[in-house]
Amino acid sequence: MSELDQFYNNSSLSTDFYELTMASAYFSSHQTDKLAIFEMYVRRLPKNRNYLVVAGLKHVIDFLLNLKFKTEHINFLKTHDIFKRSEEKFFDYLLNFKFTGNLWAVPEGSIIFANEPIIRIEAPIIEAQIVETFILSVVNFQTLIASKASRIVNASCGTPVIEFGFRRAHGPLAALLASRSSFIAGCLGTSNTLASYEFGIPSNGTMAHSFIMSFEDEESAFKEFIKIFPDGFLLVDTYDSIKAVKKIIQNKIKCKGLRLDSGDLVKLSKDIRKLLDDEGYYSTKIMASGDLNEYIITDLKNKKAPIDFFGVGTELTTSRDEPVLNGIYKLVAIKQYSKTKNKYEIFYKMKTSINKISYPGPKQVFRFEKNNHIIKDIIALEDEKIDNATPLLFQYLKDGKLIQKLPTLFEIRKYHQKQIALLSERFKKISNEKVEYPVFLSKKLKKIMKELQKNEST
Amino acid sequence: MSELDQFYNNSSLSTDFYELTMASAYFSSHQTDKLAIFEMYVRRLPKNRNYLVVAGLKHVIDFLLNLKFKTEHINFLKTHDIFKRSEEKFFDYLLNFKFTGNLWAVPEGSIIFANEPIIRIEAPIIEAQIVETFILSVVNFQTLIASKASRIVNASCGTPVIEFGFRRAHGPLAALLASRSSFIAGCLGTSNTLASYEFGIPSNGTMAHSFIMSFEDEESAFKEFIKIFPDGFLLVDTYDSIKAVKKIIQNKIKCKGLRLDSGDLVKLSKDIRKLLDDEGYYSTKIMASGDLNEYIITDLKNKKAPIDFFGVGTELTTSRDEPVLNGIYKLVAIKQYSKTKNKYEIFYKMKTSINKISYPGPKQVFRFEKNNHIIKDIIALEDEKIDNATPLLFQYLKDGKLIQKLPTLFEIRKYHQKQIALLSERFKKISNEKVEYPVFLSKKLKKIMKELQKNEST
Repeated sequence: MSELDQFYNNSSLSTDFYELTMASAYFSSHQTDKLAIFEMYVRRLPKNRNYLVVAGLKHVIDFLLNLKFKTEHINFLKTHDIFKRSEEKFFDYLLNFKFTGNLWAVPEGSIIFANEPIIRIEAPIIEAQIVETFILSVVNFQTLIASKASRIVNASCGTPVIEFGFRRAHGPLAALLASRSSFIAGCLGTSNTLASYEFGIPSNGTMAHSFIMSFEDEESAFKEFIKIFPDGFLLVDTYDSIKAVKKIIQNKIKCKGLRLDSGDLVKLSKDIRKLLDDEGYYSTKIMASGDLNEYIITDLKNKKAPIDFFGVGTELTTSRDEPVLNGIYKLVAIKQYSKTKNKYEIFYKMKTSINKISYPGPKQVFRFEKNNHIIKDIIALEDEKIDNATPLLFQYLKDGKLIQKLPTLFEIRKYHQKQIALLSERFKKISNEKVEYPVFLSKKLKKIMKELQKNEST
Repeated sequence: MSELDQFYNNSSLSTDFYELTMASAYFSSHQTDKLAIFEMYVRRLPKNRNYLVVAGLKHVIDFLLNLKFKTEHINFLKTHDIFKRSEEKFFDYLLNFKFTGNLWAVPEGSIIFANEPIIRIEAPIIEAQIVETFILSVVNFQTLIASKASRIVNASCGTPVIEFGFRRAHGPLAALLASRSSFIAGCLGTSNTLASYEFGIPSNGTMAHSFIMSFEDEESAFKEFIKIFPDGFLLVDTYDSIKAVKKIIQNKIKCKGLRLDSGDLVKLSKDIRKLLDDEGYYSTKIMASGDLNEYIITDLKNKKAPIDFFGVGTELTTSRDEPVLNGIYKLVAIKQYSKTKNKYEIFYKMKTSINKISYPGPKQVFRFEKNNHIIKDIIALEDEKIDNATPLLFQYLKDGKLIQKLPTLFEIRKYHQKQIALLSERFKKISNEKVEYPVFLSKKLKKIMKELQKNEST
């Protein structure tokens, strides 16, 4: 879990400041025993997305298991004027803070849709509140990238996609997490060496223009590279792609593949394939790169460009056409111990702001399948019985402890392959037309919402 | 420098895999003594941007000073089949690797334009090559966000902007670096507690809807919060913003400010301001948030919405309208020692691929001012003398050692304020119309380009 070590070391401060002021206010208003249930979900799917691929749960769990306040963090908080009325007991509470709650979640690699809870947390309210920002940050981003990668992989129709986006990702950690999410969603490898070291994702790479330019001529660069890397790919567009391929053939340089990084990829790949085949270079592969995305790949496929590998960078690791997943983390219920009744009572909670309402109560998603395809989901209260459907959320943490072994990255990837196979082709088509998957609310949930709205308006 | 510790610890692997295969090929082709000069720059400004605000240099320098290969990293590389022909001497070289080169850069907080080198590195070719990916990743992202933040600050015309984007940033490190870049470009504070801890940026925060909802009624939540945080801001849109303000007034709750997070911000802020003023709540401020960006803020300003603070999150920390800065790192020259001449000879390098040419030679940017405004830049060779102009690049590292004290974040912010004041208003206007700042190439540079292109085509 070293990739986020820095953040686990300072995890208590890797949060929005208001989580900590609210914690203090919960504390001073004697709410430490109150249990809160929060759910993370996405209100609307991003534009150009018909489904989401869940990713990031591993980092949520690592975070919750490691979360603690160090003395220097507490001293730092005390330097803020705003905390001057906070009790010393509150800071003692923080010093002994540990996440003791329960966590349910949809497994990484799953397909989900708008309004479906991805994560549900039940914990003492301060604990459940403080963890909000970090959870949103890691799940929003990794789900965003896995969902984008899924589209790119769909568009490539079986041609392998390699993730090449480190240099344009939002910093080195975003690059690392993007490699992981892309691999879950079906990319074959990454250019990111650290992602390979940390996660075991196959590392790939060819050469840069600078390598070619550092030699006096292109053919010397090719020869020197192939001498030591006989399985290497040669970059041919530093000066002129066609001329470069001719030089390779004339000099009888054997190479596993070529990379095209600019120009008209349809025409170039066809011309180059012909040049290669005419000279018996049948096994030499063509890789294409250079601001590729699902639309360009679809076009290359439609025009039958003979490309054997797609290297996709910028557009993938930034999810360029929609770089935001608006996942939110909303209070759905409060559980309070009633001494008279000698048990916990649950109070459903619902936000009713204009265009921003939330669905109350702890929920489960029930999914229906028919003929090996998923056909509809019902969002219901977690304790409802829905026949002939599979629940999507599983419990991972109980009283702050991990209760099931987490899958490896390779298992997650495999699980995703099975999940995506259950999704009908119409959701995978690359077009800007939205195809809506049917998601319904259970009758019971709708009834509760009506009641809560009525109460609010009175 | 702890925010990137994890990456400095594994810095040698936080790179594209091809940098390492190229390193091995440079090594085996006996090029270790060859000096390479690389420059980082942006070929075209992103859409909706008339200028860039440079950020990220501190992390480049920290990275170069800390870069090393650990035994476990080298062992990891050896597990790759592709390295099977690499000499053992190459791995010994890596084990003793240190960055020994020179670095020139435009200071953080500077304004720059397309094609102007932001960073220039001169080092033995393997060193200069290996550092490419990390440098691009940290400078591309931080410059992207500083440039976006600058637009948002311009649009706000003096009304303070607080950065609220942690939960939608591309993971927790992106959130942290985005806070830093936003502060450089003029934001007043951040919601990110870790950014406050690491960088000293003022931390800000109000409360979440969940805090309100956790109480039986809204007024109890307000009262409890203000009891402990008399300087707190109250969030009023959980149910109905106007009703919430009326409750505050009826209950005589004194608060420093209110936050509006949804609805028609123009109408609501005006109606609420009137409600407050009518009851003598003159000093109670109004903060607005909720998917704000430079366009919405311009509209709010035009419509004279009485808003005292803007909280800007998602759109800022993802640079949503253009989440990519296409900074590149290109070889511009090779320096080789000539035994016969007993000195280094320089060979200018230039890439001529279609639409992707690069400018040769080590360069400097010379900027002209008139009447306290910057009026034009000339990109020239570094050793050219250009009268009446200020050079933008300074040397920071010499033979791998820091030769000048780096400014603090507060000094960078101040420097930026002076720089942005030199930029004419027409570049700062929020519209989708591009306003082009005049950037010219020196005659000498143009002559060299012509010669190199001629040589290439022969």
